[in-house]
Amino acid sequence: MKIAIDCIPCLSRQALTALRMIDISDSKRLEIIREVLKYSVTVPLDDSPPAVPSDTMHRIIRKLSDNADPFFNIKNEYNRAALKLEKNVSNIIHNASDMLYTAIKFAIVGNVIDFGVHHKRFDLNAKIDTLYRQPLAIDDYISFKTELEKATGVLIIHDNAGEIVFDKILAEVLKDMGKTVVSAVKGGPVINDALLADARNVGLDKAAKIITNGNDYVGTLLEKCSTEFLQYFNRPDFLIISKGQANFETLNRNPRKIYFLLQAKCDVLVRELNVELGGLIFWANH
Amino acid sequence: MKIAIDCIPCLSRQALTALRMIDISDSKRLEIIREVLKYSVTVPLDDSPPAVPSDTMHRIIRKLSDNADPFFNIKNEYNRAALKLEKNVSNIIHNASDMLYTAIKFAIVGNVIDFGVHHKRFDLNAKIDTLYRQPLAIDDYISFKTELEKATGVLIIHDNAGEIVFDKILAEVLKDMGKTVVSAVKGGPVINDALLADARNVGLDKAAKIITNGNDYVGTLLEKCSTEFLQYFNRPDFLIISKGQANFETLNRNPRKIYFLLQAKCDVLVRELNVELGGLIFWANH
Repeated sequence: MKIAIDCIPCLSRQALTALRMIDISDSKRLEIIREVLKYSVTVPLDDSPPAVPSDTMHRIIRKLSDNADPFFNIKNEYNRAALKLEKNVSNIIHNASDMLYTAIKFAIVGNVIDFGVHHKRFDLNAKIDTLYRQPLAIDDYISFKTELEKATGVLIIHDNAGEIVFDKILAEVLKDMGKTVVSAVKGGPVINDALLADARNVGLDKAAKIITNGNDYVGTLLEKCSTEFLQYFNRPDFLIISKGQANFETLNRNPRKIYFLLQAKCDVLVRELNVELGGLIFWANH
Repeated sequence: MKIAIDCIPCLSRQALTALRMIDISDSKRLEIIREVLKYSVTVPLDDSPPAVPSDTMHRIIRKLSDNADPFFNIKNEYNRAALKLEKNVSNIIHNASDMLYTAIKFAIVGNVIDFGVHHKRFDLNAKIDTLYRQPLAIDDYISFKTELEKATGVLIIHDNAGEIVFDKILAEVLKDMGKTVVSAVKGGPVINDALLADARNVGLDKAAKIITNGNDYVGTLLEKCSTEFLQYFNRPDFLIISKGQANFETLNRNPRKIYFLLQAKCDVLVRELNVELGGLIFWANH
């Protein structure tokens, strides 16, 4: 997905969100916002995904605020909030006529936990309850289910903390179907993306083999990924599930077939996929 | 109302909205966005209302795009859309148990037509229908009604084109109560604010004496206003109704008692008035 002109003003809005998470003075925040604005002036409209300038912007913030993980607290907060919903969600899934479909839907709905986009805390329970009643805007389930029958495993490229609780339930369903599940989290802190610690905190390691992608870039830039990650990414007997917008932005034109699970959270993505804002997406790129 | 750090990233977002209204290339849009970003770096966090940098930003756009009135088409479009609703709205008001209150409420609801905030077209009919069912978040009607009994006239400081159709119905109700209504529009194009032409287009001149404030600044900066405007503003036998956020920002701390009718459309205003986003406001500053 290519950067659009809309992404450029969005950078400083996202910066403000990140800066609100950090305990610093408003004058320090203003100083950092100004550095982000100066950087924004230089961003070209080229073939790069929006994740690329977003990555640079978050590096500016981490460096100038002297805070290696501005979203540390909010990640823990939403892991806890999602864990509180786990039992109910798991019950709904296990009582559904199609467990796999329902688990996938909750994994998409869980992508609402995204502090690259949301700029304030929200009531997760209420949000999940509303979103779950919404039909999918794009639904490639039939193709997924057919291919899954032949696959030995699934690589899940995770997105956010909190959200991984919903991914964990999907991983359990896949494991119960006899599939090997490999769960890839980020190698270092970036936005509110899940790390190894988050995966362990929510017990994802009970359902899946957890690996990291070996880097801390926004989205998934294969040239930055570890050999271990690439081994699973390239396994022909594995399906790939990619969660969230940044992974979509950086992987949607990849020659490898990937199933993208995400909520459409900005106008640029909405135009790319021709869906409504807020739409729930289960889209295969080939 | 003082500028907040949130207002600084918001400038380039508002710029993008304005630039979408103009028929220019994306590369020209990018060039102008970059100038706005460069200007944003210099905006101080001081006592000025957000309307002040917003005004400078819109001047940058008008100059660099060589377009004196980027919102010209959308103003006409929403005048027409609001005129289509006029008969229905007027019927609801004339059948209401309290006509004045209902007319005021529709004048607040009409403030939803604001392309400083909204970045795309929306279905006015559906929006008005939803908003009208919403109770006011702040309601100073009792004080207004008491003071209106003693007043000879009302000065309405208008905000947006389209919205003035709802203001016109309020003006008619006030006129039917025996009050002189003076309607002040902007002296020159700025955002989608109503001008003399808009007031005449929607027939506001049948219910009120129309004047301009003699300038094209965002909001109401009294030092820029015409003598005619100030004469009405300072009349002790007149009540003042101010529409919309920019007029609120620039007038809320004025020693003159003013009744502000607006929808709360951004987090900075939400914090200032301690209401929910989207809240309908009927607030007196004294």
